[in-house]
Order: sequence, then structure tokens, then C-alpha cells
Amino acid sequence: MHPLDKDTTLERLSPERLAGRTSTHYSNFNGTFGGFTAAVLLRAVLDDPRRQGVPIALTVNYSAALNEGTFEVSVRERRTGKSTQHWSLELTQGDTVAATASVVCGQRRAVWSHHPAEPPHMPPPEQVPVFDGFKPGGWTSQYEMRFAKGAPDWNPRADGEIRSAHSQLWMRDVPERPLDYLSLASMSDAFVIRAFMVRGKFVPVGTITLTTFFHGNEEAMQAQGTHPLLCTADAHLFADGFADQIAHLWGKDGRLLATSTQIVWYKE
Amino acid sequence: MHPLDKDTTLERLSPERLAGRTSTHYSNFNGTFGGFTAAVLLRAVLDDPRRQGVPIALTVNYSAALNEGTFEVSVRERRTGKSTQHWSLELTQGDTVAATASVVCGQRRAVWSHHPAEPPHMPPPEQVPVFDGFKPGGWTSQYEMRFAKGAPDWNPRADGEIRSAHSQLWMRDVPERPLDYLSLASMSDAFVIRAFMVRGKFVPVGTITLTTFFHGNEEAMQAQGTHPLLCTADAHLFADGFADQIAHLWGKDGRLLATSTQIVWYKE
Repeated sequence: MHPLDKDTTLERLSPERLAGRTSTHYSNFNGTFGGFTAAVLLRAVLDDPRRQGVPIALTVNYSAALNEGTFEVSVRERRTGKSTQHWSLELTQGDTVAATASVVCGQRRAVWSHHPAEPPHMPPPEQVPVFDGFKPGGWTSQYEMRFAKGAPDWNPRADGEIRSAHSQLWMRDVPERPLDYLSLASMSDAFVIRAFMVRGKFVPVGTITLTTFFHGNEEAMQAQGTHPLLCTADAHLFADGFADQIAHLWGKDGRLLATSTQIVWYKE
Repeated sequence: MHPLDKDTTLERLSPERLAGRTSTHYSNFNGTFGGFTAAVLLRAVLDDPRRQGVPIALTVNYSAALNEGTFEVSVRERRTGKSTQHWSLELTQGDTVAATASVVCGQRRAVWSHHPAEPPHMPPPEQVPVFDGFKPGGWTSQYEMRFAKGAPDWNPRADGEIRSAHSQLWMRDVPERPLDYLSLASMSDAFVIRAFMVRGKFVPVGTITLTTFFHGNEEAMQAQGTHPLLCTADAHLFADGFADQIAHLWGKDGRLLATSTQIVWYKE
């Protein structure tokens, strides 16, 4: 079983309460990779027998570091209509609320559709080298990234140069895994913190909120298979200790599969 | 008192429960303008004596139409740390959950900041005519909009032409009102539904989730005063009954004050 499937497995304690455990595969400097937390929370809805439709939107608010060990997830169906279904979730470790989340599911139907957005041009994945600049271990080892533009560069910059926050890359799971909503949720947080990119140094940071929209139907997800996603990541601004971060994840034939925005707190 | 201040006033029933009423000023075809609902939910946090810091992020999930009349808001402080504070909210009418929301507040500090994003060039507001194509009454009468690009055009298109989803406009409150987080929350939903723009016709729609990030500190908000905001709105795709919508709201000196993303359900 793929680590993403195995490690996000939840044990049902009651109809609205689940138990899980953090993953060494998806750890980071701060405890747990936010994409793993997002995937766990989405999975609580995906696995729920009450679910109707497919995921349309996921918002995760990271309120405390998720430390290595067990946690519980509460999942409440708030309202189910003809077209949409709304869920509220909380992830707790003991008395600490580590994350709250909302998920909206929807019934996709073959009605008028229109796709004006286009991905940037990028050389095919086989022409872009796999990035090998991450420290081995933890969540970055769970992804293959090929940067066509804006690869991370950790070399200190004596001249204080500020670089672009924009990156273009191919990304997929390691080991390979057919794309689904679970992996999209996790990947939507798998872009290097933009403050590191522009400054070329590490400062204390933490994602405090992440919103991911899922734009593909089941057919589009299946068509993608294990082919890398064409991804872009960028930031508008870094202001007074809070920065934004925007990501686009494109599938085959220029189809946009997910868009994601987040706010990152940074200390200095 | 400005209608936005008067009509979003909440009566405190208990420390975590408030009562409010919908507004004829901010009504729409479907009951209540989503921006009003967003402002009410943000206000519940702004008015809370436990609040620490300023709003950083707001997500509103619209689960049912908010009908004319009274409603209640529950507001729960989920976690307060050194830098951020997380809130969960629900807006109910009787037994119906009309909306759920989360708010993240944060302590902004004068640390390293960087603002790479730039607004598009637009002629100054006085050179762009005020749009007069909205039916009088309801929420659109609460805003002055001056479209430099992508003004709404409701004329049926016999040729089936699909137009751009992109708009550029100046926007401010009517009557004029100094900018604050409350008005930014409401304005972040004040962009004509993109499906109407591209198709030139009305179809049944509803915003199902809205996430707004606030990027300005109190000083930036005060500096803006009643000057119109430079706004852009766009969409990536309209897919199987769900479309996205992205908005940028810029203040004086090219300062980005808010970014917003939403998912709009459309019937056909």
C-alpha cells in the first residue's frame, strides 16, 4: 500500500469521530507536513458513508503544530442539499485543536463547461532534471519535483539579493501513485515556502490556513494516472509577518485540476 | 450610521451566541448577498472581546440561502497562540445551517516585508464612468463600480459568443465609507458572477465557498480612506457545474489589500 494511503488510514471510533497517527513519511521540521494534515482531513470525508458527490473545496486552518503521535478527527455533516454537501472538521491532540477544516462536496454534472485558463509552456518532464537539493527524509522525499523555473537555492546571498517567488515544476508522488483527490490535497501544500525561495535562507514559518479547490471530475483524475502534474507556485507579498502563496496544479491536455491559496506566518 | 455598520450589528445573546437580521440594502435575487453574510461573520469576531490581532483570513461556506429575517451566529474561539488566533463560526436560521465560517486573526509586526506583485495599469477613477447597468435596489446599489475593462453586458448574444471572464474596475461603498476589514470582506464578494459575464445571460448560480485573505495592516486601511479600490476579477474555468472566481483588491500606492477566491455552483 502507498504510504499516503497507509498513513492517512483512520480508525472509526464512532460515526463522527476517527483516530489516526502522524507519519514519519510526511514529517517536517515542525512536526507534520501540512499537506498530510490536509489529506487526513479530506480522507475523513471521503471515507464517510454519508458523503455525496466529490470534493470541490477544502480549507484547513492550522492552529497548532501536529506533534508525532496519535490524534483524533471529528467530522460533522453540516448540511446536504441537492448539489452540495458541507462538512466541518477538527483535528485534536489531547486538549489541543491542531487544525480545523471545512470540506464542500458537490455533484458534478455534464453541463455547459468552458476552460479559458491555460498552463504556462514547460519542457516535458523527461527534459527537466529531478531536483536533488532537499535534505533526505520527511515529506520532500515523498515527491519527485522537476523545476523548469525557480528551483530552490539555499546558498546564502551575500549581496542580499531578493529573488522571484515564482516556480514552475513537474511534480508527482514517490513512489508513483495514480492521482486522486487525496494526493491532490496533499500536493497542494507541497510547494517550498516562498519566503525561503526569495530570501535564500530559512526563517521560522508556519502555514496558518490553506484553501484548495478541486476542479476535475473522476474521469479527469483517472486520465491523469501517475503522469506528473504541471505546477506553478508564486506569492503576491510578504507583509508584516504574513505572506500569501498561490499554486496551480494542471493535468493532461492543459486541464486545471486544482488551485490553492495559503497564508504563511513568518517570524522575521 | 452607514448601512454596512448598521445592518451588520449583532446583539449578544451569550458570550458565544449573537443575533442578527438580514438587510434590504444587501439583498440579492437569492435572498442575501454573500458579501453581507461574510461581513456579518467577520464582525462577530471583530466585536468579540477575546479577539487578538487583526483579520488575516476568512473562509465562508454558504450551505443554504439566507432568507429575509432574523438569524443567529455562534462564534467559538478554537485556539489562541502568540501570533495567531483561530475562530469557528456558524450562521443559522432556525434549524438550518445557512453558513459556516472560519476566521484567522494575527499579530502583524514590522518585520522584513516585500511586495513583488503589481496592480495592472488603469486610468484614474475620475476618467472611468460609473456603471449604470445594474437593476436598482439590493446590494449592487451599495457599490460604485467603474469598469475600465470587462463591464457586464446583459445583451443576449445571438452568435453564442463567449467573452472574457476578466474585469478591471474601481469600486467603493455607496454612500462613501472609510475602508476597513468589514467592507473589504463584503467587497471581496462584490464581483459579478463570472458565468454571467462570459455568457451574457443569467443562469441559476450560488457561491458555495469564499476565502478572502487580508493583506493590509490598520495603517494601510486608514491610508485608503474612501478612495476607490483598484479591483480585478477573473475565472480559470467553468467545469461540470462548478466555476472558480478570483479577485484582487488593491489600495493606494499599488498596495494589495485583499485577495479572494470562490467557487460558484451553476445549474446549466
